[in-house]
Amino acid sequence: MNSNIKISYPGSEKVYMQGTIYPDVRVGMRLVRQMPTVVMKGEERIETPNPSIYIYDTSGPYSDENVSIDLEKGLPRLREAWIRERAEKDADNIGQMYYAKKGIITPEMEYVAIRENMNCKELGIESHIKPEFVRREVAEGRAVIPANVNHPESEPMIIGRNFLVKINTNIGNSATTSSIEEEVEKAVWSCKWGGDTLMDLSTGNNIHETREWILRNCPVPVGTVPMYQAMEKVNGKAEDLTWELFRDVLIEQCEQGVDYFTIHCGIRLKNVNLAAERLTGMVSRGGSIISKWCQIHQKESFLYEHFDDICDILAKYDVAVSLGDGLRPGSIYDANDRAQFAELDTMGELVERAWAKNVQAFIEGPGHVPMHKIKENMERQIEKCHNAPFYTLGPLVTDIAPGYDHITSAIGAAQIAWYGTAMLCYVTPKEHLALPNKDDVRDGVIAFKLAAHAADLAKQHPGAMIRDNALSKARYEFRWKDQFNLSLDPEKALEYYKTANHVGGKYCTMCGPNFCAMRISQTICDS
Amino acid sequence: MNSNIKISYPGSEKVYMQGTIYPDVRVGMRLVRQMPTVVMKGEERIETPNPSIYIYDTSGPYSDENVSIDLEKGLPRLREAWIRERAEKDADNIGQMYYAKKGIITPEMEYVAIRENMNCKELGIESHIKPEFVRREVAEGRAVIPANVNHPESEPMIIGRNFLVKINTNIGNSATTSSIEEEVEKAVWSCKWGGDTLMDLSTGNNIHETREWILRNCPVPVGTVPMYQAMEKVNGKAEDLTWELFRDVLIEQCEQGVDYFTIHCGIRLKNVNLAAERLTGMVSRGGSIISKWCQIHQKESFLYEHFDDICDILAKYDVAVSLGDGLRPGSIYDANDRAQFAELDTMGELVERAWAKNVQAFIEGPGHVPMHKIKENMERQIEKCHNAPFYTLGPLVTDIAPGYDHITSAIGAAQIAWYGTAMLCYVTPKEHLALPNKDDVRDGVIAFKLAAHAADLAKQHPGAMIRDNALSKARYEFRWKDQFNLSLDPEKALEYYKTANHVGGKYCTMCGPNFCAMRISQTICDS
Repeated sequence: MNSNIKISYPGSEKVYMQGTIYPDVRVGMRLVRQMPTVVMKGEERIETPNPSIYIYDTSGPYSDENVSIDLEKGLPRLREAWIRERAEKDADNIGQMYYAKKGIITPEMEYVAIRENMNCKELGIESHIKPEFVRREVAEGRAVIPANVNHPESEPMIIGRNFLVKINTNIGNSATTSSIEEEVEKAVWSCKWGGDTLMDLSTGNNIHETREWILRNCPVPVGTVPMYQAMEKVNGKAEDLTWELFRDVLIEQCEQGVDYFTIHCGIRLKNVNLAAERLTGMVSRGGSIISKWCQIHQKESFLYEHFDDICDILAKYDVAVSLGDGLRPGSIYDANDRAQFAELDTMGELVERAWAKNVQAFIEGPGHVPMHKIKENMERQIEKCHNAPFYTLGPLVTDIAPGYDHITSAIGAAQIAWYGTAMLCYVTPKEHLALPNKDDVRDGVIAFKLAAHAADLAKQHPGAMIRDNALSKARYEFRWKDQFNLSLDPEKALEYYKTANHVGGKYCTMCGPNFCAMRISQTICDS
Repeated sequence: MNSNIKISYPGSEKVYMQGTIYPDVRVGMRLVRQMPTVVMKGEERIETPNPSIYIYDTSGPYSDENVSIDLEKGLPRLREAWIRERAEKDADNIGQMYYAKKGIITPEMEYVAIRENMNCKELGIESHIKPEFVRREVAEGRAVIPANVNHPESEPMIIGRNFLVKINTNIGNSATTSSIEEEVEKAVWSCKWGGDTLMDLSTGNNIHETREWILRNCPVPVGTVPMYQAMEKVNGKAEDLTWELFRDVLIEQCEQGVDYFTIHCGIRLKNVNLAAERLTGMVSRGGSIISKWCQIHQKESFLYEHFDDICDILAKYDVAVSLGDGLRPGSIYDANDRAQFAELDTMGELVERAWAKNVQAFIEGPGHVPMHKIKENMERQIEKCHNAPFYTLGPLVTDIAPGYDHITSAIGAAQIAWYGTAMLCYVTPKEHLALPNKDDVRDGVIAFKLAAHAADLAKQHPGAMIRDNALSKARYEFRWKDQFNLSLDPEKALEYYKTANHVGGKYCTMCGPNFCAMRISQTICDS
């Protein structure tokens, strides 16, 4: 399997920023070069340059024309030397949280500090996000850098509410078609549009091999739900699951390089029945499986009972734990109910146990929540889970729009991210209906990128507004190509524009020449 | 031109609810009949019926199979007798606000009271929205029932923050193609998907004739921006506009039956220059035209100077005034600036002058606003404009997503509607790029319907949750058709579902049979 997958963006080039603590830290970014502003003063043509704009870049080496991609070899092993050096010094403690607590800034920490400060240095904007700030956030559990020592291909990124809001995309199949090539292609596609992490939720055949290909070729952290592979091993019979079998799956995936695991350790035997009071019961796959196990055996879940053992395994590889919310509400009616909040309390207990073992942790959140109940979710999570990052699915703010749930969830996602959620799990238009195709993935990623960016603006992240300002200035000055190049989806913007216009005009068909407000406005301002 | 335009919805029938004060009030609604819930107890099949659900219906007679549609004759004149009777009694005062202030409940008020209480009576939900409540809201200016006496075809609806959130759609062309048939078809298309009012923003030829066809065949209130027709009359030269010419346009459109006018009376000569401080100047077409006039003549705008004369005309026909926000921000950078808020102060002055003449009024709002600045917009509008309804365009919460601005604006729209905006102007994916086609209109309407509904849920409008609950119960019980029939866009939901599934299954391809959380959850809850 030798492919020539590359990623390119119009008007952009790949550039790198070097670290100062670690000169071998080279952070990849996109640089969009702009046209000058042109004003005619009588006969004279006056050009004023516009600054180049850096854009946070999740496309890894795929967008670097100097790197040749060979899927069989996998991507360059960016973090390999850093990991090796640490292993030589501290055989047993190789995790970001361990070093953070010791007061040591890792190359990964400097990497993310540079990455979070897009455009600030160039435009003289003061930013509080410095390597020492990153270290402290990781040490105190407020932020996570998912970074399995066996996934050196992954570019460091950070998940925490004092950083840019991140988005996760899901790929993987249920027990049907889809080749490995297709899955790798989907992973790269997600990175192209801006997915910050990627969950491989495959449940079909070749689960190990598919994951291997994805990991070796994925420039962003990869998460999984190990329960899915465990279920394949017991042929779908939840009652046959055991701790030993589950443990083996964990070790297998740690060895491969998975960066974080969603594990539904928050399900307690005593809470399983709470879902019976609900309109839509349980809608988490992992949650329903372990609940069924608890109910059949009438025993506390082995995920809860062996949580410390799980953490011991994860600590060895610096795999982060994402505490899955098995009791997330699946409808507006069930939002913020006893079942949901009982699980959150358990998660708050577990997160401290994870930290005690230097395992980085974050908490998964709802689900379906009407707008007036979103804030309570965020505030409770911060309080009960001691500031661990929140990672939410949506939330969807109404149930009545199947086919448009990327929008119902982007509305909730923007709000909860503004309130403090660190990472948003994307939702595609096919949610509740079918598996997404490539167009759906693109629609889902962009909907969530814009929701995340809206939250960055609302939180006043240093420099977040620079891209909006540059794009709006280009719009006002009819620099169409700059406008498109700076947008989240330059291809779509250009495609729509071309349905009605010739590129380069001084107005568009929305208003026609006599009614273009911006054109009239300019004649007022110029005079 | 004889067409056979009809509207149908799967699993739905058209029903009417009768008034009690006025027995000739018959409010059209959609009734969705559901399948029973089926449970097998051993061999025994137990069926439990599910209630039929009423859905607010903007499709008018187009969805009534007993009404034959003849576009040349126009729709049945629903309000004709009510209007005639009032005209016989009070030659000069025929407006909803006039009667409301006198303590009289009109048939239109009873109509909207019934319409706002979908499902409440049947399900025993107490609602405060009674005809007397409607009357008081109209009397005090907190709500508007747009109802030109010359548009008797329009079904009464109400715009106010204590009622269901409404959405407006825009149709009409700039100076190019598009036939009259197409425009009528677009109007009906908008009504099909749920547009509550319709603005005809045509600026091309046949502007009068197009509007006539739309009005005679439109079951929802129609708004216009009269300045566009005035500009056609001066061949696009803003400086040639005069009060007399504008007045004639107003009278012409009042006579035709336009229900509300957007007029940019809030632009003052002293504020025109404030836009020069901005990143993106003025982005309102009407606003930029009248600003240019002010600047060229160095005079106060004739719209402001003649505001009382405008109201005298509007009062005669019960046309509502929508105070256009000529200085709305066109970028995140310009949000909540001096220019915007200076205009809002002027609008607050004007709205009281409108009310003094019994002219119903609402206020138009931004634009582009980051999330953390949305609330200030709403609170200021309520305070400065004395509780007059707010009618906003979006707001868009980021500038960087051209091609996806129906989503950036739905995010802002859901929030501002929750805070109190009464009506949302839809935005389509083509915003900033080109005129929307039919698919874009559908995408825009549904995005805004779901945003409006999310706000209704957050505001806890009586009965708003009933539809969500019914749909979610259908989802949990794998009653796929009921789920689709209850959704905002049943056709799209079914289409997506069919890409991967056979209708009627006990799971979908998202999770496959072994991983369907809802199925596993049911086995837990049943046991």
